[in-house]
Amino acid sequence: MQEVLPILVFQTDFTYLEGAVASMYGVVRSVDRNVEIITATHDLPQFDIWSASYRLHQYVPFWPKGTVFVSVVDPGVGTSRKACAARTKDGYYIVTPDNGALTHVIRDHGIEEVREIDETVNRLPSTRGTSVFHGRDLFGYCAAKLASGKITFEEVGPAYDVNDIVKLDIHSCTCSEGCAEGIIEIDDPNFGNLWTNIPTETLLANGFSFGEDVRIVLKRSGEVIYDRLTRFDKTFGNVAKGEPILYNNELMNASLALSQGSFLKAFDAGFGPEYTVRITKEDIRE
Amino acid sequence: MQEVLPILVFQTDFTYLEGAVASMYGVVRSVDRNVEIITATHDLPQFDIWSASYRLHQYVPFWPKGTVFVSVVDPGVGTSRKACAARTKDGYYIVTPDNGALTHVIRDHGIEEVREIDETVNRLPSTRGTSVFHGRDLFGYCAAKLASGKITFEEVGPAYDVNDIVKLDIHSCTCSEGCAEGIIEIDDPNFGNLWTNIPTETLLANGFSFGEDVRIVLKRSGEVIYDRLTRFDKTFGNVAKGEPILYNNELMNASLALSQGSFLKAFDAGFGPEYTVRITKEDIRE
Amino acid sequence: MQEVLPILVFQTDFTYLEGAVASMYGVVRSVDRNVEIITATHDLPQFDIWSASYRLHQYVPFWPKGTVFVSVVDPGVGTSRKACAARTKDGYYIVTPDNGALTHVIRDHGIEEVREIDETVNRLPSTRGTSVFHGRDLFGYCAAKLASGKITFEEVGPAYDVNDIVKLDIHSCTCSEGCAEGIIEIDDPNFGNLWTNIPTETLLANGFSFGEDVRIVLKRSGEVIYDRLTRFDKTFGNVAKGEPILYNNELMNASLALSQGSFLKAFDAGFGPEYTVRITKEDIRE
Repeated sequence: MQEVLPILVFQTDFTYLEGAVASMYGVVRSVDRNVEIITATHDLPQFDIWSASYRLHQYVPFWPKGTVFVSVVDPGVGTSRKACAARTKDGYYIVTPDNGALTHVIRDHGIEEVREIDETVNRLPSTRGTSVFHGRDLFGYCAAKLASGKITFEEVGPAYDVNDIVKLDIHSCTCSEGCAEGIIEIDDPNFGNLWTNIPTETLLANGFSFGEDVRIVLKRSGEVIYDRLTRFDKTFGNVAKGEPILYNNELMNASLALSQGSFLKAFDAGFGPEYTVRITKEDIRE
Repeated sequence: MQEVLPILVFQTDFTYLEGAVASMYGVVRSVDRNVEIITATHDLPQFDIWSASYRLHQYVPFWPKGTVFVSVVDPGVGTSRKACAARTKDGYYIVTPDNGALTHVIRDHGIEEVREIDETVNRLPSTRGTSVFHGRDLFGYCAAKLASGKITFEEVGPAYDVNDIVKLDIHSCTCSEGCAEGIIEIDDPNFGNLWTNIPTETLLANGFSFGEDVRIVLKRSGEVIYDRLTRFDKTFGNVAKGEPILYNNELMNASLALSQGSFLKAFDAGFGPEYTVRITKEDIRE
Repeated sequence: MQEVLPILVFQTDFTYLEGAVASMYGVVRSVDRNVEIITATHDLPQFDIWSASYRLHQYVPFWPKGTVFVSVVDPGVGTSRKACAARTKDGYYIVTPDNGALTHVIRDHGIEEVREIDETVNRLPSTRGTSVFHGRDLFGYCAAKLASGKITFEEVGPAYDVNDIVKLDIHSCTCSEGCAEGIIEIDDPNFGNLWTNIPTETLLANGFSFGEDVRIVLKRSGEVIYDRLTRFDKTFGNVAKGEPILYNNELMNASLALSQGSFLKAFDAGFGPEYTVRITKEDIRE
């Protein structure tokens, strides 16, 4: 019976505007003809390590255990930042620059072991003269060898202390009866929604209920950009087209949207710790 | 001998800007490791059910019978609109919100049977708390079970009357000797071409011939935006670069283009019943 | 033992904005259920044959020998330009309009044999009435038959003289001690980098060294758009964010970038023979 190889899932900020993805996937196929290649996305925001980490948080748990994820958002390519492969406590593999991209994976899954990729054996030999495309020459090549069973995890390179993995700050929300404060952790740039770091369950446990209007104050660097009574509800269609809504997003966090519109564009908003959000039951009409 | 599984073909308006596609495909792979996943497109215009229906019209017939198409343009996600799987009379399957996306499939192929997806058994159990991502939680999951043979079509859920399927209006053209009237049914947003609902065969049967100049009057909500003698020909290269042409498109309908340019942008045009087109043999130079 | 079929790799300028890719891939799957379909890119610049040729140069060598590449940038679709399949001297296949797209393949690999696709047998029969979508009707269909072994290379159609293949001009650089002159051959439109036709090895052999500042004069049609002392180094991270750098790109050519920025946008640049670049060791501060 044929062994089922792990799947290779790729996310990068390369786009398809030129030949980078095609050369990276060509390297994979030159290593092994059978390992499955899946495109998670090549449209991550350029150089945005936070987004790389957050997107892994968003989709890794939906894949079979054993899947090998390759994440290449790598502004420090060719410098001293480590290139690594990590095995999570629940059996996923992530091959990535060690630059913060593992932040959410550490929190969500825990890292059992991390290894620095040994360039002397796990780099595409023909490309030793160039330092700017580790997606093709190092991460893609090494991940293909790992997923296809050409090397073991131990053969990736030397292990190092999981506590030495670079981590970005994850901001927590604070909540009390009728009041929640947090940040816009990430956006959905397609539909223009803003995802807070406030779990919907936390709102429900603190006196908020679906179907009621709540006051939302959104600030950018302390300046108010949105302050309005907003329906808190389960899905977009429960408010009229164009109306704002605080909804329970796909990761069960409270999020801001305009029904069939873009909250992001309408209020010229964004994400990051400078975007703070306060949700209260107080009625500003009084 | 191994059974060949049906192919799963996806179209959505999700883009690759965030992790939605990756989580949807992860769910498919968690259901089954072997069913083939093909991306038709994730770049449909947001919330545009007409485009979802039209694109199925454009490409479904080129796929093997038995293929399972998943179409998720779903502005009403989580509301009372039905989630369904339909089997066409010629053996294709379409898994989609029942919101009009089956309009062209009904006309082109006919629906033999339609079933409402039973959320109690064909929804990803871990996601019951959220109502906004049925591509991942319901359509992708159920379609993966169907394509991989984990459930039969009957096990999708209860059948309902095919006459109850939501349909959008399809506009017909009118034609007589030397005169055709129709609408711009859809665009090709990449090359900036406008596709009318007038079959080229109908033009040829009514006195028009390739290689001649015809008068075209294009209106937006009654206002003329283009009125010009235009070459009617087989392909773009038969007119000079930048020149307009009425050509026979890939679906054998009369269509408007600028050779190596964008008719769409040049005349600030679009598609829908408000864009009417009149083609005559009358010579405006007289 | 099952024979391993060649991989089918596609590059076009179709985008995913409509159903073209989906119908092309459907045709492939209707020819054969097993041949692997890989998307190189569908985001090539429209009508840009040079980019089609250059991207093949960029990624073909990373794929296994025997791979079948389908390249469809085809402004002359349906006109007298030939549709062909070429076999390189090192065993790759390219299926493409013969319009210049083979320029770099000829230089890099050499063409052993080229054949004009016989439309009477290697065109999708149901599409004979239309002349505008050879990606679906001719190139995709014929390549699928070839890759799946349904036809031999000889059965593609009649061979013709490899010297008759259409070629675009490839510009050479000139180099002497401390001075190199060339053009911007192509861009990386994602990261906004400009790739010259000057091999890094040539610079190193003519007195330039990594880590030193060199003078770069970039002109558009003779007009200076950039004239500055610029660090010549191995990778972006060796200069501060926002700083310009002359780096050794993934194809081992000298290239211009702004670290974590876009040189392309910052200087409103582009590529083509009208963009000339001169690199000297002269110090303009003196």
